[in-house]
Amino acid sequence: RLTALFEPMHAADIADLLEQVEPDERRQLVLLAGSLIDGEVLSEINEDIREEVIETLTSEQLADAMRELESDDVVDIIEDLDEDRQEAVLDALDMVDRIAVEQALSYPEYSAGRLMQREVVIAPEHWTVGDTIDHLRGQDDLPEQFYHVILVDPRHRPVSYVTLGRIMSSPRTTPLASITEESFRKFEVDEYEGDVAYAFNQYHLISAPVTDADGRLVGVITIDDAMAVLDEEHEEDVFRLAGVGDESLSNSTFEIVRRRFPWLGVNLLTAILASVVISLFEDVLSAVVALAVLMPIVASMGGNAGTQSMTVAVRALATRDLTGSNAWRVVRREAMAGLLNGCLFAVVMAFVGSIWFGEPLIGVVIAVAMVVNLLVAGLSGVLVPLTLERFGIDPALASGTFVTTVTDVVGFFAFLGLASLVLL
Amino acid sequence: RLTALFEPMHAADIADLLEQVEPDERRQLVLLAGSLIDGEVLSEINEDIREEVIETLTSEQLADAMRELESDDVVDIIEDLDEDRQEAVLDALDMVDRIAVEQALSYPEYSAGRLMQREVVIAPEHWTVGDTIDHLRGQDDLPEQFYHVILVDPRHRPVSYVTLGRIMSSPRTTPLASITEESFRKFEVDEYEGDVAYAFNQYHLISAPVTDADGRLVGVITIDDAMAVLDEEHEEDVFRLAGVGDESLSNSTFEIVRRRFPWLGVNLLTAILASVVISLFEDVLSAVVALAVLMPIVASMGGNAGTQSMTVAVRALATRDLTGSNAWRVVRREAMAGLLNGCLFAVVMAFVGSIWFGEPLIGVVIAVAMVVNLLVAGLSGVLVPLTLERFGIDPALASGTFVTTVTDVVGFFAFLGLASLVLL
Ligand SMILES: [Mg+2]
Ligand SMILES: [Mg+2]
Ligand SMILES: [Mg+2]
Ligand SMILES: [Mg+2]
Ligand SMILES: [Mg+2]
Ligand SMILES: [Mg+2]
Ligand SMILES: [Mg+2]
Ligand SMILES: [Mg+2]
Ligand SMILES: [Mg+2]
Ligand SMILES: [Mg+2]
Ligand SMILES: [Mg+2]
Ligand SMILES: [Mg+2]
Ligand SMILES: [Mg+2]
Repeated sequence: RLTALFEPMHAADIADLLEQVEPDERRQLVLLAGSLIDGEVLSEINEDIREEVIETLTSEQLADAMRELESDDVVDIIEDLDEDRQEAVLDALDMVDRIAVEQALSYPEYSAGRLMQREVVIAPEHWTVGDTIDHLRGQDDLPEQFYHVILVDPRHRPVSYVTLGRIMSSPRTTPLASITEESFRKFEVDEYEGDVAYAFNQYHLISAPVTDADGRLVGVITIDDAMAVLDEEHEEDVFRLAGVGDESLSNSTFEIVRRRFPWLGVNLLTAILASVVISLFEDVLSAVVALAVLMPIVASMGGNAGTQSMTVAVRALATRDLTGSNAWRVVRREAMAGLLNGCLFAVVMAFVGSIWFGEPLIGVVIAVAMVVNLLVAGLSGVLVPLTLERFGIDPALASGTFVTTVTDVVGFFAFLGLASLVLL
Repeated sequence: RLTALFEPMHAADIADLLEQVEPDERRQLVLLAGSLIDGEVLSEINEDIREEVIETLTSEQLADAMRELESDDVVDIIEDLDEDRQEAVLDALDMVDRIAVEQALSYPEYSAGRLMQREVVIAPEHWTVGDTIDHLRGQDDLPEQFYHVILVDPRHRPVSYVTLGRIMSSPRTTPLASITEESFRKFEVDEYEGDVAYAFNQYHLISAPVTDADGRLVGVITIDDAMAVLDEEHEEDVFRLAGVGDESLSNSTFEIVRRRFPWLGVNLLTAILASVVISLFEDVLSAVVALAVLMPIVASMGGNAGTQSMTVAVRALATRDLTGSNAWRVVRREAMAGLLNGCLFAVVMAFVGSIWFGEPLIGVVIAVAMVVNLLVAGLSGVLVPLTLERFGIDPALASGTFVTTVTDVVGFFAFLGLASLVLL
């Protein structure tokens, strides 16, 4: 019955199913399904539960699963296991594969060297189309998927590539060197995987060679893996903007509490800071209780406007659309937009405040505070991410806290400070 | 000099450069660069300024630019132009291309039919590897990039595909039907592009045929275009979560004010709602000014915790990891995590509140409010997106407003309500 269920499913969907069931059911499914949990499923499954699934497999099942995978997928699985497990998986590999995987593991985490597969198809620069086709026909361990033949010089350095489409549509006598692609790009083993994903997306790459420190070809990165990295980078950004660490739906309650607590702790500190600002104005607050009622509006509008410009800035930094050359224009634009929106909402709140509490001066105070806070929100929304980026800190990680702290403090200070001057 | 600058640059980088300079400089650059702004650059450039760039080109330059592009890129450019301009571009195309582009424009926006290119490589089911290679050698207008040969039945319906790698490495006599790929998937013309992008990412597709209502092959979608859609979907989600509409760095101040104003307006309404809640407790606020000082802390912590679980939920809905089968487990987990974090921060705030204002009862009040609000934050953070999704509303679009409204209202109500009971 389980075979009938899993057989027609894609490995990625089986992995999703295993991720979504309760932990108990998962253990049972894996025990029952054993041999159906193949290498593809293991490589699709979320890292958080992969170890758990691997533990229920016999070492023979695990070895079978590993042998069918390309080296990049083996590396992706093995890098997250604990050392004993790593040893067991490595032992299950053939010697050649084992050396390739150990080599990849020696490169930094999140590098091109970890992302690449060792299985490549190469040809010397001087070959013709005919030479290449004859050679490929004679090979029996070609990669499962490949899209280019990489041309290498005598020192094994990649110099260009030719698409399979061009090879197939050209006469046998055509030299490969005459039908190479202009789009050719290569990466070094220690480049950051996020930069690799950016380049794939920006330049419409399908695959790209990876070279070692001496410029020699050591592997190739394919677009499907780059696309997965792009997706992970995005998840990281959206989570960090919201003060969520690295978590997944499979994490337990305790795991998510442990990961979210620190962010909430930081937020508590900034909230206390804002409260300290408020406490400076206890006099005017006890005199005019309307201020306590209206005060959160100024802070909330500032926080929202700040989040808007911050999100645009953080995203533009991630896509490299915000650079040194347009930073100044964007800062000016956000300041102007903040000022304009501030004036519009100032008018609205001047009416609301005056009518609600029957005191025009309250309307004036909230209107002025609104303009100040929305201007500051627009400015800090773009200046904070830019500054963090300049100091090498991920703007997605820390901008939110800074920006809302600024808008809270400025909002309360402007509103209550002005109220003290005008109403006391 | 401009030629020397642009010549070695990739079209995507030229497009980025044009996007980043000031509008005046851009006009000048385009006037000077004229013929260097080719089809590739036009298709890479941001939609917001594309029309502006196109207007400065002569109709001959535009025609040349269009003719070098695949049909999907022409469609992508033409769909955003106004009608006169569309007509001008269509007139510049050959009759065959024109029909293909008009056909694509007849499919709904953001559909597979708009994303596909008409240029496909097909073979009858019964062909051998040799037949295919001979046929391809005889073709002179093959697509610039292709990775599969699609097998079609006599009624032109796609039945499977074969990778070029398999074709090249198999003997000439091998029937294509014996070396087809298991991963084969096809899309219908009116499928949503976001679903297409999801499938490419989930199933590691490189290209996939698109069929019309009768199941006949009408085009093919390639992974580079799917990757661009995935990236746009990300941007849409992260912008909507922050209450930012569809905007780009090239938009002017007025454009962004116009797009952000409505979201700030909605936020103002919810902030006023929260103020109304506060105003119910004016008595206790004027009696105990410490409450006004501490009150924003409860709301801020609730808003933050709610944003955390909401972001995880919205992202999990987008990646389809949160489904009917695990929704209940996730809701329970978020509630428990909210409760736990609530208790931890309750202890902290009980001390802070008591010591700061020398009144243990204030500590008790804020502690209880913290537990209540963080529990509600965790629950609403996941229930709100789930409910919106069920009603067919994009959870990224509206969750933020709902969740923070809930946490503000509950936070103020719990804190001030309890204070009235205990301190008055
Ligand atoms: Mg998955
Ligand atoms: Mg794979
Ligand atoms: Mg990994
Ligand atoms: Mg990795
Ligand atoms: Mg791979
Ligand atoms: Mg990042
Ligand atoms: Mg870009
Ligand atoms: Mg661009
Ligand atoms: Mg293209
Ligand atoms: Mg378009
Ligand atoms: Mg489109
Ligand atoms: Mg395309
Ligand atoms: Mg969406």
